[in-house]
Amino acid sequence: MKKGHQSWEFYSSPTIISSGTVVGPDEGLGPLARHFDRIHGDLRLNQESWEKAERALLEEAATIAIGKVKLREEDVDFWIAGDLMNQIISSSFAARTLGIPYLGVFGACSTAMQSLALSGLLIESGAAKRILAGACSHRATAERQFRNPTEYGAQKPPTAQFTVTGAGVGLIVSSSDYDEIASRQPEIPPPIRVTGATIGRVVDMGVDDPYNMGAAMAPAAVDTIQAHLRDFGRTAEDYDVIFTGDLGNIGHIIAKELLNEQGVTFKSNAFMDCGMLIFDQQKQQVWSGGSGCGCVATTAYGYLLNEMRKGTWKRILVVATGALLSPVSYQQDETIPCIAHAVILEGGNV
Amino acid sequence: MKKGHQSWEFYSSPTIISSGTVVGPDEGLGPLARHFDRIHGDLRLNQESWEKAERALLEEAATIAIGKVKLREEDVDFWIAGDLMNQIISSSFAARTLGIPYLGVFGACSTAMQSLALSGLLIESGAAKRILAGACSHRATAERQFRNPTEYGAQKPPTAQFTVTGAGVGLIVSSSDYDEIASRQPEIPPPIRVTGATIGRVVDMGVDDPYNMGAAMAPAAVDTIQAHLRDFGRTAEDYDVIFTGDLGNIGHIIAKELLNEQGVTFKSNAFMDCGMLIFDQQKQQVWSGGSGCGCVATTAYGYLLNEMRKGTWKRILVVATGALLSPVSYQQDETIPCIAHAVILEGGNV
Repeated sequence: MKKGHQSWEFYSSPTIISSGTVVGPDEGLGPLARHFDRIHGDLRLNQESWEKAERALLEEAATIAIGKVKLREEDVDFWIAGDLMNQIISSSFAARTLGIPYLGVFGACSTAMQSLALSGLLIESGAAKRILAGACSHRATAERQFRNPTEYGAQKPPTAQFTVTGAGVGLIVSSSDYDEIASRQPEIPPPIRVTGATIGRVVDMGVDDPYNMGAAMAPAAVDTIQAHLRDFGRTAEDYDVIFTGDLGNIGHIIAKELLNEQGVTFKSNAFMDCGMLIFDQQKQQVWSGGSGCGCVATTAYGYLLNEMRKGTWKRILVVATGALLSPVSYQQDETIPCIAHAVILEGGNV
Repeated sequence: MKKGHQSWEFYSSPTIISSGTVVGPDEGLGPLARHFDRIHGDLRLNQESWEKAERALLEEAATIAIGKVKLREEDVDFWIAGDLMNQIISSSFAARTLGIPYLGVFGACSTAMQSLALSGLLIESGAAKRILAGACSHRATAERQFRNPTEYGAQKPPTAQFTVTGAGVGLIVSSSDYDEIASRQPEIPPPIRVTGATIGRVVDMGVDDPYNMGAAMAPAAVDTIQAHLRDFGRTAEDYDVIFTGDLGNIGHIIAKELLNEQGVTFKSNAFMDCGMLIFDQQKQQVWSGGSGCGCVATTAYGYLLNEMRKGTWKRILVVATGALLSPVSYQQDETIPCIAHAVILEGGNV
């Protein structure tokens, strides 16, 4: 299973059989809207607090994912999830609601791919048959926890990013379980296989500006992409597209330049960023693009899976990036440690 | 590998070859002092802030664990760690220092056993050869993040617990790697095998008092112990001791009564709690006992391993409990969701 220095190759085709994506009003006005299962017009989801709204997003996404294949919570072995909230309360409270044995994880905005990588590992190793993996974020909870109360109306520099309000959850099953379920439910879409993953190292190039996460995270994305290609003996051309999580405009340019300098080049549209896809950057005021655990989670479990099922891409690499700072570390004059975890997704039979 | 509903059995004997434990002054005055590798007399470890002191504890424990067997950071595949700080900054910043591919986890005070369970899984499945797993906490960082600034001198009820200042890190390797390293270094102590684990569900019985974590967590410990015994087809008598993480006096009594009601009984000294062992509750003012991620981490990687190597116990179960609340969830009138993860440790050849 171990491949090279920091990667895993999965030979048994752990399979994403289903997913659930739930977003807020801004994401519902963006170009990926049709790929989301549910769009809430009310940022608060009729909940008492932003935090309860964020949890509701995650619980809904989980319920949708298992409902699509007519399973129930008790049919799932583990719930692997994380979020940006202090003590990842969205995921933990969702674990209480779901009642599924729970592994909480944290990789900031890289969490969705960290949990998917671990899910692939658990399925591959026979440690589980079915796993729900997910991540979420909410603009209003992130603003007040990481930045300022929104009531301040604090101005933002153009390098800032707009936290996605959304949750993405995947249901990952063994290949044989997919075949069994799909044989009973012919409406189930083609399988998407999780065929490998690369676990990132922390990279910190000294950026200390929490309003420029893209620049901080770009070197971590580059480090993980390089490690991945080295571990698998592949080039970027072996992937139809390499997607980063939420580098935004600024981080995307930096990452591309760094990779080019190191000899990694891309064909047109073969290197994209979920933070640049989820909003219409001409019409929506999102500065450098989307961010938050929910950005790559909803884009990957919505748009990317749909396009792969249609055959647009056969093999992609999703490299979710995370900035591992806290308001306290920032106040204590620390720079921003960043990380990226990558997962290979393949459509059809592999 | 999957065993029953929520457990894993490891057949290849993932092995704890080494560990590092570093504690603060209060733990150094407690009855387990001689089992810790390093005791700091200064709660701040000569650092600029409590948070940097906490990180230093974890980095020191990691460095000690790999130094004992003459390995270097680059010889280790993954760093799996977590802590109580917002965004688990202690573990993430330590990951930056160590430079090892990193999986951040969060299970509050259950984190040490969550990371050890995952380490067993990664070794068993061939996803890694060597893993550093750890957790830490610091009294002063926890006080100001979860409770009040210490300067307030707020009074505490007798149900409160005293956060352990300490970090515990284990180096987990494959059985063959242990044999190879030990053949070159005869001073390496006998192996401790990680032979199984049970991943907990979230249990919330409605306790909402953050100064009574023991009562909140006891039902989660009971749920996981029951699940473990059911999954493995064992009784409590199959373990020399079942250790809980940090229930303290109050939680220990509740857990024991709940288990007794369900027909699980223990011989004398066969059900103990790390939170009651780490301090001298007669002489030290720790209310109901120790708590924090560092409590079970330092007790297990120090005292428990040492006694197992001496042969005091042959097979134990360590059930680390965690309260998955945040100050925000408490302020929003939520009750406290709790979880417990259990790991089987066996001495000698199994």
